[in-house]
Amino acid sequence: MYRCDMKSMEDKIKTFSKFGDAGHGGITRYALSEEDKMARAEWLRRMEAIGATIEMDDLANMYATLPGSEPGLKRIVMGSHCDSVKNGGNYDGILGVMSAMEVLETVVRENIPHRHPLTAMIFTNEEGSEFPPCMMCSGTMAHDYMPERFRDNFEYSKMMASKSILTPDVTFGERLAAFPYKGDKANRMSPEKYMALFETHIEQGPILEDAGKDIGVVTCVLGQMLYRVKFYGFAAHAGTFPMKKRHDAFHAAAEALCYLHEEIDKLGYEDLVYTTGEVVIHPCVNTVIPDFFDFSIDVRHENPEVLNKVREILFSLEKREWQKCKCEVVLGWNRDTVYWDKKLVGYVREAVEELGISHMDINSGAGHDAQYISYMIPTTMIFAPSDKGLSHCEVEHTSVEQCTNAATVMLNAVLKADKDQ
Amino acid sequence: MYRCDMKSMEDKIKTFSKFGDAGHGGITRYALSEEDKMARAEWLRRMEAIGATIEMDDLANMYATLPGSEPGLKRIVMGSHCDSVKNGGNYDGILGVMSAMEVLETVVRENIPHRHPLTAMIFTNEEGSEFPPCMMCSGTMAHDYMPERFRDNFEYSKMMASKSILTPDVTFGERLAAFPYKGDKANRMSPEKYMALFETHIEQGPILEDAGKDIGVVTCVLGQMLYRVKFYGFAAHAGTFPMKKRHDAFHAAAEALCYLHEEIDKLGYEDLVYTTGEVVIHPCVNTVIPDFFDFSIDVRHENPEVLNKVREILFSLEKREWQKCKCEVVLGWNRDTVYWDKKLVGYVREAVEELGISHMDINSGAGHDAQYISYMIPTTMIFAPSDKGLSHCEVEHTSVEQCTNAATVMLNAVLKADKDQ
Repeated sequence: MYRCDMKSMEDKIKTFSKFGDAGHGGITRYALSEEDKMARAEWLRRMEAIGATIEMDDLANMYATLPGSEPGLKRIVMGSHCDSVKNGGNYDGILGVMSAMEVLETVVRENIPHRHPLTAMIFTNEEGSEFPPCMMCSGTMAHDYMPERFRDNFEYSKMMASKSILTPDVTFGERLAAFPYKGDKANRMSPEKYMALFETHIEQGPILEDAGKDIGVVTCVLGQMLYRVKFYGFAAHAGTFPMKKRHDAFHAAAEALCYLHEEIDKLGYEDLVYTTGEVVIHPCVNTVIPDFFDFSIDVRHENPEVLNKVREILFSLEKREWQKCKCEVVLGWNRDTVYWDKKLVGYVREAVEELGISHMDINSGAGHDAQYISYMIPTTMIFAPSDKGLSHCEVEHTSVEQCTNAATVMLNAVLKADKDQ
Repeated sequence: MYRCDMKSMEDKIKTFSKFGDAGHGGITRYALSEEDKMARAEWLRRMEAIGATIEMDDLANMYATLPGSEPGLKRIVMGSHCDSVKNGGNYDGILGVMSAMEVLETVVRENIPHRHPLTAMIFTNEEGSEFPPCMMCSGTMAHDYMPERFRDNFEYSKMMASKSILTPDVTFGERLAAFPYKGDKANRMSPEKYMALFETHIEQGPILEDAGKDIGVVTCVLGQMLYRVKFYGFAAHAGTFPMKKRHDAFHAAAEALCYLHEEIDKLGYEDLVYTTGEVVIHPCVNTVIPDFFDFSIDVRHENPEVLNKVREILFSLEKREWQKCKCEVVLGWNRDTVYWDKKLVGYVREAVEELGISHMDINSGAGHDAQYISYMIPTTMIFAPSDKGLSHCEVEHTSVEQCTNAATVMLNAVLKADKDQ
């Protein structure tokens, strides 16, 4: 078994944490920003230093490749994104970029034999913080391989027209045109040139920490559905309208929300998650009884049967009135569970077992670039634990040892895949 | 007993409904707008036609006065406002203006003897639709007579600096400077010159209609308190954070809201009203568990003991955690119940009984110009029923007969007050 180097990983974490450092522990590093440029320049410097061949594509995805010993074989690629959310942490995304660098550096340092070319990469704009949507460039690359119903979300022309949420007169296309790290569309990842993708990422949840495990062998990205639950009451004057005659849409929604929690919890699935994060209320005036209240509900589980049971509970809300208000449940969108390639998942599991690192199978509740790439080539993921499960915030943390372990597992899993054609 | 004229009232309703007519039944007539100018021009024309003396003050409040038979007596004034909310109805405010006109016209037409000068008036900017706050000009006139703790809300210089919510670079003072219907500050209503105020208004609630009564003898404006109820949780990722570990501020607020309804309803006061109309949620993203949720609660009742009981229930929320979230209850503002002058209320009750019009005592849940004037001179109000209790909307309606009845009651109550010094 080969092992990655803790000192080298520590140096990378410290260095990349500077690019976008806001001065209180985390970073803000939007895609195609000055901070993104700094991170890519550093990545480029380090990858050139080990003699990797650098390629960039038209979406500013970057690839650093070490040739394999057998000509004609496809590349095995490792990578993630280096952009962040606003006031995000030093691990989300960039850990996958650093781990891939660390794997290539270890391969060179230890002179590890490998048949396939090995590639470390950076995906552009995974977070979509300034230019939505999330996972924009992996989605655009995988466009032609996606199920029909997702394709429209990742049309190239639509992505180029995506407007900045900071300066709405600037589009992603314009920002990309001015960005230095670009190349040919021909350099995009494709099934013709690439055999498999490994993405290392932080868990962003507390499951590994709570179980006392150092590595998550990720098996899938959870199926997800988003609904809006709407309540229609009528507005009246806060001071003059008797309680008994009111149709209060907020009271209706509050009652229905409590009911949803009760009923969904009764299903008894510990690994089911659902979140009511977004709210619209009208007219939102303290002297007026609300005539409209709408909340989002995001539900995630691996098993479509379980999602169906939740869907049934949701639609049961429509069958009665809530505080005399009509209820309507409207689909936002849904996706099926995306399973990682079984063979690759097996390689990760074997590697972590052979290394003697504590581990467990886990699924990903969050979306990742790997999930779109999986429509194109065999794909899998490796999770490192997140302290207290916190992520997308400045206190986001994973120890250097855990980060290095994740890179080590990826290295050894990649070497197992390297034995395949 | 004297009676006002239905045809004359109907003509006024039809005429004034044109000024700001948006074409679908109601009006938008903001204070100091072109539509307001039209309404005031019409008022002026009609008041000059009956030989009333016209005065205006520096706040564009307008006064039309018929002299009384005994020199040296103070004026009895009737009036309300002619501005509306956006897409409001044809009765809120303007009914009080039209009723006062109708009373003076009837006095002239029927040659009714009266000792005191009788004044019909228009208050500027009661709704505060474009320039907050509500009841701006009655509040400013009554400023020196108000309890200390309200005064700061109605400082003249603050009112003049009030910014338009439509064109925020324009202040109320600037709009007022360009408004034609203005005069001397010396013309403002004052206890030296005025003996009593009567304000006729629509109920804006369904109590009279439900009780089958044509007139509400208003006894007070309800005591009111406004609190904000805040819940502090913590944010985490919708897809990765297990349900059991969440501190969901929206779920906390929903549970507490249902609890509030249960506990307050247990108090058993049918005339207690409370409204949770305004909501703040953070971060309001469908993939993030809300870490903050805040709702307003506006509570109104005549009896301060009852308000205290509700206050106790509100503060009891702070004593426990809601879905692991801390709760904080913060006072927005409160006011005591404002009681109308007992003698004047008695005159209204006598008048309506003598006229044989069905009636009941009622309180006002909404605020009115009369409530600030009551700090200055004896004041009372008369309510006409609102169809279905609806108000501040285009379908707001009160029949011509009910409007005329209200004016008739005011006329006869004023004539009773006219016997006093």
